[in-house]
Amino acid sequence: MTNSMMNSDNPRAFSFIGGTSGTWTVASQRTVSGDPIGEASSVEMSPGLLADVPAGALWMLRGVATNDRYTTSAEKAALLKRQKPVGRASSSRAALILLRKSPAWWALAQDERRDILEEHSHHIAIGMRYLPAVARRLLHCRDFGTAEPFDFIGFLDYAPGDDDAFDEMLGQLRATREWSFMEREIDIRLEKA
Amino acid sequence: MTNSMMNSDNPRAFSFIGGTSGTWTVASQRTVSGDPIGEASSVEMSPGLLADVPAGALWMLRGVATNDRYTTSAEKAALLKRQKPVGRASSSRAALILLRKSPAWWALAQDERRDILEEHSHHIAIGMRYLPAVARRLLHCRDFGTAEPFDFIGFLDYAPGDDDAFDEMLGQLRATREWSFMEREIDIRLEKA
Repeated sequence: MTNSMMNSDNPRAFSFIGGTSGTWTVASQRTVSGDPIGEASSVEMSPGLLADVPAGALWMLRGVATNDRYTTSAEKAALLKRQKPVGRASSSRAALILLRKSPAWWALAQDERRDILEEHSHHIAIGMRYLPAVARRLLHCRDFGTAEPFDFIGFLDYAPGDDDAFDEMLGQLRATREWSFMEREIDIRLEKA
Repeated sequence: MTNSMMNSDNPRAFSFIGGTSGTWTVASQRTVSGDPIGEASSVEMSPGLLADVPAGALWMLRGVATNDRYTTSAEKAALLKRQKPVGRASSSRAALILLRKSPAWWALAQDERRDILEEHSHHIAIGMRYLPAVARRLLHCRDFGTAEPFDFIGFLDYAPGDDDAFDEMLGQLRATREWSFMEREIDIRLEKA
């Protein structure tokens, strides 16, 4: 087996560990739809891929940052102009949004999903209004080799003063046609420990 | 950890093992671009996800069947009408095409990639002309947790009389603008053992 065939860690992968210690303290946890997960008191976001749930942890979730799936070049240029990366010093509030869409969503063709996501639901346009206050790291879990419990992990952070704006944004997204395809959603709010 | 959080095997995953025994005998192997892989004499396609290279095997490659990334609903309807699944009794010839696209490809927005793939390169239209003679299983590897050596694994099978048609199809695809983004391609031809 040559070196190029070795499975090394994926630089686009992140692991989230729910347990009793970590950078983020859990302020609240709400199961919006589908089955709940265990209620951890702390969450750690760790770059790279953990193979197993660490000793003492309640759960581990993993995802990969990937290429744009729906964004057009014009939308991408507008986003790049306004968005900031997660991890700003002022961002002492965060949300971990765990999402799974239905088989009906995944059976749609590309143009049908784009049509629902943006032309009907304005997902990209809604998110744009809250930039740069809200920063987002979106990770995909659906095409992991192993079957993962969610399709997406969204980690979003912001300053304490932007709590209400964040809730407003999420409320708008949840009212969309796109969201009618969510079969599982868990909303965990975090504060920097 | 609840049951729903357990990592079980992914029903959309397949593993390919290159070694000295298997359903398929290697008739030829050609490195079209990028680094070669070890030259196995046999290949096995196995449903599910193998965690490690089996003892005695030269290499293992894994991928996941996923949702359509570019196909429109009209194209999908036309494909579904004509295409057959891999594994027909008459399909005693097959090709394993291993592909990796460049970072420049993955940095493009969705509309830019669609534009190159179909509006300029006619990838879907070219494949359509060879249905139902050629059957295809396309697997994605880029969003595995572990870093995989290829982005795509294409397994295509056909009857011995369709050898020339298959070569013609592949020749057309390789001449496209889409293919200028391939940074690694390996073409392994197989015959049923």
